[in-house]
This record gives sequence, structure tokens and C-alpha cells, in this order.
Amino acid sequence: MTDVTIGIDIGGTTTDFSFVDRNGVCLTGGSIRTDAHDGIEPYLDDLIRQLTVVRSSYDGKLVVVGCGIGAPNANYFTGTVEHAPNLTWKGVVPLAQLLTDQLGVPAVLTNDANAAALGELLFGGAQGLTDFVLVTLGTGLGTGFVTGGNLLYGHDGFAGELGHTIVEPGGRECGCGRRGCLETYVSVTGLVRTVKLALDEGQGSVLAEQSRESLSGEAIHKAALAGDALALEAFQFTGKWLGFALANAVAITSPSDIILFGGLVAAGDLLLEPTRAAFEAGLLNIYSGKVRIRVSGLKGSEAAVQGAAALSWKELELDRDGD
Amino acid sequence: MTDVTIGIDIGGTTTDFSFVDRNGVCLTGGSIRTDAHDGIEPYLDDLIRQLTVVRSSYDGKLVVVGCGIGAPNANYFTGTVEHAPNLTWKGVVPLAQLLTDQLGVPAVLTNDANAAALGELLFGGAQGLTDFVLVTLGTGLGTGFVTGGNLLYGHDGFAGELGHTIVEPGGRECGCGRRGCLETYVSVTGLVRTVKLALDEGQGSVLAEQSRESLSGEAIHKAALAGDALALEAFQFTGKWLGFALANAVAITSPSDIILFGGLVAAGDLLLEPTRAAFEAGLLNIYSGKVRIRVSGLKGSEAAVQGAAALSWKELELDRDGD
Repeated sequence: MTDVTIGIDIGGTTTDFSFVDRNGVCLTGGSIRTDAHDGIEPYLDDLIRQLTVVRSSYDGKLVVVGCGIGAPNANYFTGTVEHAPNLTWKGVVPLAQLLTDQLGVPAVLTNDANAAALGELLFGGAQGLTDFVLVTLGTGLGTGFVTGGNLLYGHDGFAGELGHTIVEPGGRECGCGRRGCLETYVSVTGLVRTVKLALDEGQGSVLAEQSRESLSGEAIHKAALAGDALALEAFQFTGKWLGFALANAVAITSPSDIILFGGLVAAGDLLLEPTRAAFEAGLLNIYSGKVRIRVSGLKGSEAAVQGAAALSWKELELDRDGD
Repeated sequence: MTDVTIGIDIGGTTTDFSFVDRNGVCLTGGSIRTDAHDGIEPYLDDLIRQLTVVRSSYDGKLVVVGCGIGAPNANYFTGTVEHAPNLTWKGVVPLAQLLTDQLGVPAVLTNDANAAALGELLFGGAQGLTDFVLVTLGTGLGTGFVTGGNLLYGHDGFAGELGHTIVEPGGRECGCGRRGCLETYVSVTGLVRTVKLALDEGQGSVLAEQSRESLSGEAIHKAALAGDALALEAFQFTGKWLGFALANAVAITSPSDIILFGGLVAAGDLLLEPTRAAFEAGLLNIYSGKVRIRVSGLKGSEAAVQGAAALSWKELELDRDGD
């Protein structure tokens, strides 16, 4: 008999799930399409069916004690997914309540960056830390702030949007409708924009030989490793903005660690070296030399469901402590 | 018999103290000079003597249950005042322990902006709030962030330095040794710098008639009220930077309220109107219309000692809850 929580990571295309024990081990799991259902009810029917199949086929007894969900536009306090542009469900969906009813155990949800932060806190490199920031560097830039040992939700559940702090007033257009947001510079998308702009200005690069549409983070990484000056400069530029923004964020929450996660982190020192340099240069002296910037040790393929499961484990602990 | 905590506010020149009940009422108090002693020991002797005199002369029985101190360069976790440039004591002073030993009740300390935030939380306009920011606008710009009902200290006790986030890379020189910090633009000092720079550029103003050395926040306020264009523009400029920086801070901690306090706030709508306009323009849409910016209702003369006393009351509650 093993106590597990179900970790569910809802993306625009795929929903992954796993049965995760208290040590963060993903014992068994599966996935369904997110976008193949006509509304939330058939989606949930499919999800519950698959959960049941996977659970019963596992060679061992799983006692499900909770369920955690990471989803876009998810609100921890209300348990709802609200007007998510990349999901086929419309309006405000009370997903936590729906899953609580179906599963018979408490279900909680939050956005993916917050879930990733809890995954680091319970199962990853942030175990034992009380104050750290998890930064996801993928298509966008997401952040989860842990302060005093707990996830920082804010009054409405929407805290932790460092990617949408404005670093360059009047700068690049952002999907949020404003200009100059950090994630327009620091993300895989931002890196690609930086390279395209440089190519448009006529700068020479091996990347000029391929179509603009096919430019990817991987291609830029590969070019940088081969010594391409434009690609190297693009990483420098990206790291400078990231280090600058993180230094300002430290002056608000004073974390001991900043943990980077996601596709862009594969670039390693190409990104980390300029990030750390700009970060230390931008820090107020009382923080100098006290904040570690490092890369997540969690496996990318499992981290999302581990994080969602961690949300549930954390919630069960809070409930117990509160009793 | 009335339970009270002692609130002590240590400034560079004066130390104010008050015996404060659980409702925030300052029952009796006094003050001593901070800078008139040759070291920490004679300072503490003087302080304890005055506390004893004031307490015994109060017409009623005061039961002292704790002591809270607001001081520059104060660290909540270590209970020490560290290398405070504006105090005559040298090095690292274990002030909380020294006062605990002398008073026989637990003494705790933090910086003045954090204490002010707790004063608002326990006695002021933030009662019942879980997530807000207190901004002190005086010689500098200090901030105390309350998240999830508790003061945000960070891993080392030094969280909440919004005044030292860089808003203009390469901008105005700051006392911290860097350039472009928010407080070089938004503070009484920042406002005076803004006006001096405009006068140096030859802009006309009634303020040009007085010596640059005598320029004060009050004089600029008075000129703005009289319709002086330069003074009015200076407040617009100050409010724009403040609104911009607050909008970015909201994207990290998502507070319901931002409470402004200190000398600059006397300017009222001259400052608030451009601040609110820049704030709403800078907010990510999920926060729009959800965050109130308002002025503290606490009396300036009492707020500092109330805040220090609140720190002690809050600590006593946390201790009780933790048992």
C-alpha cells in the first residue's frame, strides 16, 4: 500500500498525469489529448477513465490521497481555470471542484510555474529552502516565488508574473498587449526575436542561411556552440536582461536561490555566464554574493507532473498543520 | 492592569518610544537623543532609565509583555543592527538580545518600513488584509511587503527594498553606489533633485528665486499649489516613476492594496493622480482595477512607534500560534 497524489499537467495539446509518492517518484502515469474533446465534461470523462486504467494496471496498491493540477490561467484560491486562451474550454471552469467530486479526494490547482516551484521545494534542489524563485524559460517566462516556506500567491492567486514586468518601456510588443515585458526578451521566443532582428539588420551569421520561420532555440544554441558571433551575442543579450530583472526581483523578496528551468536552460553557460554577471552587477550591496543562480535538477519530462503532485502534497501538509 | 508592548523607533538623531496597547493606542511615551552617547552601552542605560521614568509616572498599571524596535540596518532574523551609517554605534550590535536582557521580555527588531507595514496591519488601514505593500516616501523610499498575512523578510531578513530596484539603468547616482535606483527619483530628495535639474537647465519657476540649498519638498509643494509649472511637472515626473515601479512590483507579489506614507504624501493628489495613472497604464491586465493605492491613515508622529510596537504584538501572536 503506497500513498500517492495524482499530478496532472494540463497543456494546450496534451494532458500528462502521474501517480507520485511522497518522495516525488512517479510510479506510473499516462496522458490524454487536451484539445480532442468538445468541452470540459467529455475531457474529464476521458481523463478519469485513463486514470482508472493506469491505476488498476499498476503492479501494487496505490492509495490516492489527493490531486494537484498545473494548468494555464489557473487560480489557486478559486480552483478555477479562467478564460485560458490555449484551451478549448470556454469561460470559467471550476476544475478543482469537478475533480474533487469525481475522485473523492481534495483536488487543488495552480499555474505551471507555481507547480514547478513546489516540485523543486518538495522533490528537487530547493528542499529545505524557505525563500527561492523558480524561473521557467520556455515559450514564455514564468515564475513561482516561495517565501517563508510557502508559495507566494498574492491576494488573488495571481502573484509571480516576473515575465510581465516591464524592463524596457516602449520596447518589444508582448502578447499581453503591452510593450517591453521581460519575456519578450528572455524566453525561447525572445531569443529567436533577438536573432531575427539582428539578421534583419543585415548582420552576418550561419543562421542567415536558413529560413526565418525555421529559426529555433536549438538552432541558435547550435550556432553559438559553433562560435557564431551573432548567436553568441544573442545569448549575451538575453542573459543581461535576465540578470538585470532578477537583481531587481531580489530587492523585493530576498531569496537565497534562483532556480532556472525549461528549454532555454539547455544552453548552459552560454546563458548562465552573462546572466550571473549582469545579476551581480545589478544587485544592491546587501545581497551581493548571497544569492545562488542555478539550474533545476528535475527531469524536464517529469517535472511538470511532479510539481502538480507536490502542490497536493503541500496542501495536505498545510491542512494537517492547521488542524 | 493593561498589557502593553514598548515600541521604540530609532532614528539617527532621536529615539522615540511609547507604551502601546493591543489596539495601537500610545498610552504614554518619551524620547532620548540617539547621537548623544559614546557607544551602545551608555545609550541603552539612558533609554532604560527614561523608559522606567515614563512607565512609573503613568497613571495606571502597565504590564510590559514585549518590545519592538524599528531601526535602520536592522535585521529581524539576527536581532542585530549592522553597520548603520547614520548611527554612532560601530559594527554589529545585538540590540534585540541586549534589550531582552535589560527588560526581561522578548525584544524583536526590524527596519522602519517593515515596522510601518506591521503598524498598518495591526492598527491602521490594512487591518484584515493579507497582501499589501507599505511605501514610505521620505528622505528615501522604503517598503514593507505583507504577503499571506505575514511580513515578507526573505531568507536573510533583508527583503523589501523596492527603493533600490533600478528603474533607469545608468540614471541618477544613488547613495548605495549604483545608478538609477527608484528612490533617486521618488522620495523627497528625488523630488528636490528633479527640480534642481530643471532649474539648472534654465526652466523658469518661482523656485528659481530661492537658493538651491534651501529647496525643500514643502517649498516645491507650495509652488505646485500656486500653479508653478515646473513644480507641477516635478510631481508628475515623480508620480510616473512611482506608478511604473509599483506596477512591476504588483506582478511579483499581487497585493490588494498599496499604502503610501511619509513626507511626500502630504502633496496628496499632486502625487497620487500621476501615480495612479502610470500605475494602471503599467499593470498587466489580470491585475487591472484590482489594486487600491491609498494614503496611510496613521498619524505620522505616532506611526513609527506604533509600528515598532506592532512588530512585538505580531511576534507574540506568532509565538502563541506556534505553541
